Amino acid sequence: MLSPSLLKEFGRIVGRENILVREADRQAYSYDAAVSPPEIPALAVRPGGVEDLGRIAALCSENELPLTVRGAGTNLSGGTIPAPGGVVVLTNGLDKILEINEADLYAVVEPGVVTARFAAEAAERGLFYPPDPGSQAVSTLGGNVAENAGGLRGLKYGVTRDYVMGLEFYDATGGLVRSGSRTVKCVAGYNLSSFLVGSEGTLGIISKIILKLIPPPRASRAMTAEFADMDAASEAVAAIIAEKIVPCTLEFLDNATIRHVEAYTGAGLPVEAGALLLIEVDGHPAQCEEDAARAAAVCREHGATRTRAAENEEERDRLWEARRNALPALARARPTTVLEDATVPRSRIPEMIRGISAAAAEFRVDIGVFGHAGDGNLHPTILCDRRDKKEFERVELAVDAIFDTALSLQGTLSGEHGIGLAKAKWLERETGRPTLEYCRRLKRAADPAGVLNPGKILGF
Amino acid sequence: MLSPSLLKEFGRIVGRENILVREADRQAYSYDAAVSPPEIPALAVRPGGVEDLGRIAALCSENELPLTVRGAGTNLSGGTIPAPGGVVVLTNGLDKILEINEADLYAVVEPGVVTARFAAEAAERGLFYPPDPGSQAVSTLGGNVAENAGGLRGLKYGVTRDYVMGLEFYDATGGLVRSGSRTVKCVAGYNLSSFLVGSEGTLGIISKIILKLIPPPRASRAMTAEFADMDAASEAVAAIIAEKIVPCTLEFLDNATIRHVEAYTGAGLPVEAGALLLIEVDGHPAQCEEDAARAAAVCREHGATRTRAAENEEERDRLWEARRNALPALARARPTTVLEDATVPRSRIPEMIRGISAAAAEFRVDIGVFGHAGDGNLHPTILCDRRDKKEFERVELAVDAIFDTALSLQGTLSGEHGIGLAKAKWLERETGRPTLEYCRRLKRAADPAGVLNPGKILGF
Repeated sequence: MLSPSLLKEFGRIVGRENILVREADRQAYSYDAAVSPPEIPALAVRPGGVEDLGRIAALCSENELPLTVRGAGTNLSGGTIPAPGGVVVLTNGLDKILEINEADLYAVVEPGVVTARFAAEAAERGLFYPPDPGSQAVSTLGGNVAENAGGLRGLKYGVTRDYVMGLEFYDATGGLVRSGSRTVKCVAGYNLSSFLVGSEGTLGIISKIILKLIPPPRASRAMTAEFADMDAASEAVAAIIAEKIVPCTLEFLDNATIRHVEAYTGAGLPVEAGALLLIEVDGHPAQCEEDAARAAAVCREHGATRTRAAENEEERDRLWEARRNALPALARARPTTVLEDATVPRSRIPEMIRGISAAAAEFRVDIGVFGHAGDGNLHPTILCDRRDKKEFERVELAVDAIFDTALSLQGTLSGEHGIGLAKAKWLERETGRPTLEYCRRLKRAADPAGVLNPGKILGF
Repeated sequence: MLSPSLLKEFGRIVGRENILVREADRQAYSYDAAVSPPEIPALAVRPGGVEDLGRIAALCSENELPLTVRGAGTNLSGGTIPAPGGVVVLTNGLDKILEINEADLYAVVEPGVVTARFAAEAAERGLFYPPDPGSQAVSTLGGNVAENAGGLRGLKYGVTRDYVMGLEFYDATGGLVRSGSRTVKCVAGYNLSSFLVGSEGTLGIISKIILKLIPPPRASRAMTAEFADMDAASEAVAAIIAEKIVPCTLEFLDNATIRHVEAYTGAGLPVEAGALLLIEVDGHPAQCEEDAARAAAVCREHGATRTRAAENEEERDRLWEARRNALPALARARPTTVLEDATVPRSRIPEMIRGISAAAAEFRVDIGVFGHAGDGNLHPTILCDRRDKKEFERVELAVDAIFDTALSLQGTLSGEHGIGLAKAKWLERETGRPTLEYCRRLKRAADPAGVLNPGKILGF
């Protein structure tokens, strides 16, 4: 528990009513969406304006108090689990959209703006913000930036990083750092904006974000293609790319996931199919028609037993609703869901799938697989019960084997969920020791007192 | 001059024949394309393989010898001017294209690969590498990454940064750092790749680059639109964007530039026009036709006195040839050409142009303006004679005024040329002191001995 005088100082910054010290409040901010042990913070604070963030940082630095910034807490790697005895800074109230500039195609937002709300506001002005992480209905843009959130449109439109034109953030002692610009091109000094993207709150406290917007596609077409197995589906994915078609979304579900989703939603998915591709193309109406026809033909040439186009908006929405239900549907099956995001170059998907199946068999765990086939971004989802120690040991061995397979295929531990606490121990295996040491030197330089979200990514 | 024993150590790394110590050689590497005073290095070395780069870094660190990596030396901000008594590392020989992966849409290259050669090799495999800096015929990809080079296609396709999926680089002591991946999505640790992009050799020595490739557009259409003045042309630019047309290239020349280019090339440019827009749209053939027709109509509605479509490839090539000759044509007029790249949100172009005209009048200097209108990336080009001290003082005052105007319009000092030596003294004006201090702490952490291209960006 913090001293009364220190609590008073926090109160002076954010107001007494915005200091949360009750057990129930602190419990609420002790965990996030990752399967990692919770940690109860000393207090949570609710700043009323972005300038409070700098004053909170300074106070924490002076008192060597660890500080964890939290938006919606939807991240999947423990990035928002606080450090022991630390402070959680809640950004949900910092939710102003400061500017949407239609002439210059950018927006300026505070970190607490909810992703889907922002995308909707941009859409109302005839503009498009493509990144659509699974949690977009509640996730915040600050959290998306801190985690470099991905989503279903990565293949054609990229991820959060690709839309961050500039940032303002407070350093560990409360200095205001500015990087990037409202211009498409900017090379004035180090690219700190991109450096902060995905740094999980360990390098600074984001207070303002300049985001790129683009004109929306004029048309889109969605379809499904059923396959006997994942190998055939993967070949179809490769063939679509080889045809120079770049769908905005190219997702897959394996048989286990199809069955779980169908049981959950009754959306009419083909429960006998070994694998299902969900494809959406967009762009100019003529291109859209052609791409949709060619993608369907390519699927049939590569063994699709059936292809089916969404006839209208409603059918299209039902399709994506089914895809978005993959995780909740799988999660219903057992008490604990370990959702991984090992990612490989897309041509290696068949090998990766085989590696996952081998791990499931070897360690006797139940794994459903779905994900972003176009990106090679797989979500092997292990259904288990954390309380069953023996089973959970096997789960960890399976995860370990899955990571090894991904790295052996020139892939990465994490495509879009981040390293956080959950994968910190594996990072060196991907990058090697000099890379970690280089990062640690940068982290110490940015945060000498070690107060910014300690333990994440680098383990200190 | 370095000691014979130290020279011998360099010789052991790269071979004696690759150590250049003669006056003429050292002179050749004392300057780059910027208007900055040359600095003669102690020696230049020509590594025979990328692994030599790490050994050179280690040797330089041990001996506190400043080290400047140089590709083609085409950068415009003094980024490759060596430090006094330093070593220049020539990467031109490190020019292997290690992999072009057509299935997974990426390439792996060494830093000395020439930009245009790489783009051509990708094109032969049916793929597209969009960044096209003005010096692409000779510039190297390592240099492009170090400077985050832009080009004519920034508006639609982005800049070098947007194509860097991963990097390998040696840190100051020769440790090999890896960042990013062959996958579209990767959030395994800090985004060091993007941090290194644009860092001008001050944070590490790039040894390998993973670049994103995309399918090429199926069609393109180029055209010109003539206007009475830049205001009208700028309004047309804004209106094109407001129409949700995103040309791949949207360039302008002012009257002074038109006249110089016409005198130089005889390309048939309209010497009476106050401003000329050069527009190219690309994509699906149907979209291309529509966009070209709509862009031409928008130009006419906004005062274009004439629009003209390129009827064939040859006419199109002649158009871009004329644009690419803007700089050499202006450069012929006077002994010294100061090429700036102040950049503003595109809707502020008219104000920026007025600011440039005001600076030209106030300080009695001759400025031609051309550039990337779609990006707001202007190239005010001051024609002068460096030997005329009084005139050059006025040039510096004009540059100062131009930067002030750009910053007051929410723009940036540099859109694509970098800070280097030439603009280091202005950087704080854009970013503020805490930003510079944050960057300096990172630089010191990455390079404690201060050997990596000292003096650039941060002034030490």
